[in-house]
Amino acid sequence: MGKVHLKGNDTKEKKTEFSLVRVTSAWKCDLGKKATAGCVSAAKIYESITEQGTSWTVVSPIVFTYKEVYRIYGAKLTEYLEANNVVYKILSLPTTEENKSMTMALKILEEVNKFSLDRRTEPIIAIGGGVCLDIVGLAASLYRRRTPYIRVPTTLLSYIDASVGAKTGVNFANCKNKLGAYIPPAAAFLDLSFIQTVPRRHISNGLAEMLKMALMKHRGLFELLETHGRMLLDTKFQADNSVDGHNCFQAASQATRIAIVTMLEELAPNLWEDDLSRLVDFGHLISPALEMKVLPSLLHGEAVNIDMSYMVYVAKERGLLTEDEKQRIISCMVGLELPVWHEAFTMELIQKSLQDRLEHSGGLVRMPLPVGLGEADIYSDTSCEILQKAFVKWCGELSGSSDSN
Amino acid sequence: MGKVHLKGNDTKEKKTEFSLVRVTSAWKCDLGKKATAGCVSAAKIYESITEQGTSWTVVSPIVFTYKEVYRIYGAKLTEYLEANNVVYKILSLPTTEENKSMTMALKILEEVNKFSLDRRTEPIIAIGGGVCLDIVGLAASLYRRRTPYIRVPTTLLSYIDASVGAKTGVNFANCKNKLGAYIPPAAAFLDLSFIQTVPRRHISNGLAEMLKMALMKHRGLFELLETHGRMLLDTKFQADNSVDGHNCFQAASQATRIAIVTMLEELAPNLWEDDLSRLVDFGHLISPALEMKVLPSLLHGEAVNIDMSYMVYVAKERGLLTEDEKQRIISCMVGLELPVWHEAFTMELIQKSLQDRLEHSGGLVRMPLPVGLGEADIYSDTSCEILQKAFVKWCGELSGSSDSN
Ligand SMILES: NC(=O)c1ccc[n+]([C@@H]2O[C@H](COP(=O)([O-])OP(=O)(O)OC[C@H]3O[C@@H](n4cnc5c(N)ncnc54)[C@H](O)[C@@H]3O)[C@@H](O)[C@H]2O)c1
Ligand SMILES: NC(=O)c1ccc[n+]([C@@H]2O[C@H](COP(=O)([O-])OP(=O)(O)OC[C@H]3O[C@@H](n4cnc5c(N)ncnc54)[C@H](O)[C@@H]3O)[C@@H](O)[C@H]2O)c1
Ligand SMILES: [Zn+2]
Ligand SMILES: [Zn+2]
Repeated sequence: MGKVHLKGNDTKEKKTEFSLVRVTSAWKCDLGKKATAGCVSAAKIYESITEQGTSWTVVSPIVFTYKEVYRIYGAKLTEYLEANNVVYKILSLPTTEENKSMTMALKILEEVNKFSLDRRTEPIIAIGGGVCLDIVGLAASLYRRRTPYIRVPTTLLSYIDASVGAKTGVNFANCKNKLGAYIPPAAAFLDLSFIQTVPRRHISNGLAEMLKMALMKHRGLFELLETHGRMLLDTKFQADNSVDGHNCFQAASQATRIAIVTMLEELAPNLWEDDLSRLVDFGHLISPALEMKVLPSLLHGEAVNIDMSYMVYVAKERGLLTEDEKQRIISCMVGLELPVWHEAFTMELIQKSLQDRLEHSGGLVRMPLPVGLGEADIYSDTSCEILQKAFVKWCGELSGSSDSN
Repeated sequence: MGKVHLKGNDTKEKKTEFSLVRVTSAWKCDLGKKATAGCVSAAKIYESITEQGTSWTVVSPIVFTYKEVYRIYGAKLTEYLEANNVVYKILSLPTTEENKSMTMALKILEEVNKFSLDRRTEPIIAIGGGVCLDIVGLAASLYRRRTPYIRVPTTLLSYIDASVGAKTGVNFANCKNKLGAYIPPAAAFLDLSFIQTVPRRHISNGLAEMLKMALMKHRGLFELLETHGRMLLDTKFQADNSVDGHNCFQAASQATRIAIVTMLEELAPNLWEDDLSRLVDFGHLISPALEMKVLPSLLHGEAVNIDMSYMVYVAKERGLLTEDEKQRIISCMVGLELPVWHEAFTMELIQKSLQDRLEHSGGLVRMPLPVGLGEADIYSDTSCEILQKAFVKWCGELSGSSDSN
């Protein structure tokens, strides 16, 4: 029995910033006075708000954590659990994209099974990047047909993206997230301070998903990334890091807040993804195939960014973006140290991915495309000719510029 | 593209008998004028009612069927699908209790993946006993995070039990149904004529789950089984079979209808099993461990019946049943050709199972027990002494009487 307490980024000033509340089947973002934790059926997760932050009381947790995360934070975590007399078991796992598989999920399930869990009240806690959260979430969903789990994202990407929504998953038959479930976590605990140890390349990786939301829905966020993106990279979103005397606090908190709120707005009404017209799919039409094809050379956000970069050319070709807007977007991407082109992103890959989409989505490819900066729409009628023309221009202008990660 | 049509038991007279409708998240039994098929998100499952029965129109189904079922019904099924120009693929699987595992689910998933499915509109159809329905249902739930599936039960047990509700599952770490999901099927098609080829022992097996509902909720059903159980076994629930000039039609249709309706009444308000006080758990407290321990020697319903038989002695010991009522129940079980005792059902197994239950259910063992015939209540305070006394009596009176299946 015990208590798990995880502090918010800055509890004094922004303690309500990331209150993610699940109400019936939808996530709701509560920017009001108090943060509350929604839950599936885990009647014994209590939360209380103090001056020091928000705390949740949970019973006998089993904790899965990414190996690297365990190396850095394991001692602190153990100390905390011990101090609170929690009956626990921490398992450090090699949760990489390459072994994001049902095999790994089954390994986790064996451990869960050994640790006697009361599935209704004792949550499984996943602490790590998106891969860890996805695999552990799936394992929890399967165990005794549903065991509550808690997400503690430790990368920027998982902080703003995998932390939100109901999706869990593993790769299967060389396809990204082909198996999974839509089972929301009992709670998601967000603590930006984990990001301080994330490698620079992985910060860029997270910025790609942030940029996605900016391009689709929020011109202000785009301009913020355009202006302060580099500083955010340098300071790793930490309030106490400063560069040239500039404190990143405001930019970091604004950027993460907007990214999460816009993401929530899109996910909440469509938690099961029944509606196929999704702005959040921007950058996710061709990138899954690219990511799997070149594994492990591209990170998820990098593959997404290459996809977005190409789609920006498609939007330009369709007359949805001006040349100037296109340039600004590509420059912003480069500033965020994200790849904007890749040799494995071929016309063949594009066509195969869209064909696949067609077959699996009722005969329509719904393609989100930016319309100006910070706005977008869904198009189902992009011609092969446009795709081809955009591809030629894209390669012509960017094939040299990209570094090969 | 095409149409799948499966006839009801007797379409002229009882076509509304088994209308299972899923409304929002609960199953509803519609005994009114028309049968309707509820669905998860499979917008393209249409149903229409004609004089010949109820038919559902589905698109490009992938069909999984139990080997034995395929041997008997494969030709007919193929003929039907061909005649209706359905794009289909039939897979016959060795879905036995011993290989009810994630391995088998993954094999199914590989086949599903090869057959390009539009997950929102193209259902997977499972035709077989409870094992087949459970594994295929789980595979469908996992594929692309949820693919609609349809259940076509072909055994008596799966007809009255596994066809109803949202549960899917596979065995794991030698525990019954340890992994699974609560994802209701898009539809369940019930056709009693499949039962005509079910082996006699498997009819008894299904009668056990029927008897469970009788003991818990319906004195009329109990008396029906007491009086006509043997005839139902002999005629295999077929309207056109008759024994000594007696037609089983009325008894068969009454018994199946009552069993399903009472089951639905219990499941509908508790589809996710959040409420742990469940009458349907009768016979399911010790039997999972027994079933796994002696696999494959006992069928599910047989293990359930042995558990129920012991619990009847517990109820008698607690003063909830008279000696006469106890005798009537045991005689009925014997009449249905069900085992009422087993040497592997030991005091140790009882204690281990209840201990396990305690740990996984918030520190309370909720034990459904019959109170008279056709009524029951949930008890959380059965003492070790009572359990022990009942066990001694149970062994004393029944250890000789039971055949060893
Ligand atoms: N479920 C969802 O809604 C959702 C949304 C977006 C992405 N995803 C999935 O998330 C995955 C990508 O997530 P990711 O980018 O977090 O990758 P990841 O989980 O592989 O983590 C990246 C790396 O970061 C390191 N790491 C993690 N936390 C750290 C820390 N605090 N300090 C130092 N190092 C740390 C680890 O070394 C790890 O190798 C993809 O598989 C993607 O499909 C899921
Ligand atoms: N999901 C649920 O809600 C639920 C409910 C009850 C039971 N179950 C599960 O169902 C399983 C038991 O189901 P079952 O008793 O149907 O067992 P089963 O699936 O193993 O089928 C029993 C046998 O019947 C034969 N068979 C099936 N249909 C036939 C037909 N029409 N003609 C001839 N032979 C046929 C096969 O040879 C098979 O070996 C257990 O694993 C149990 O856990 C699930
Ligand atoms: Zn993504
Ligand atoms: Zn059962």
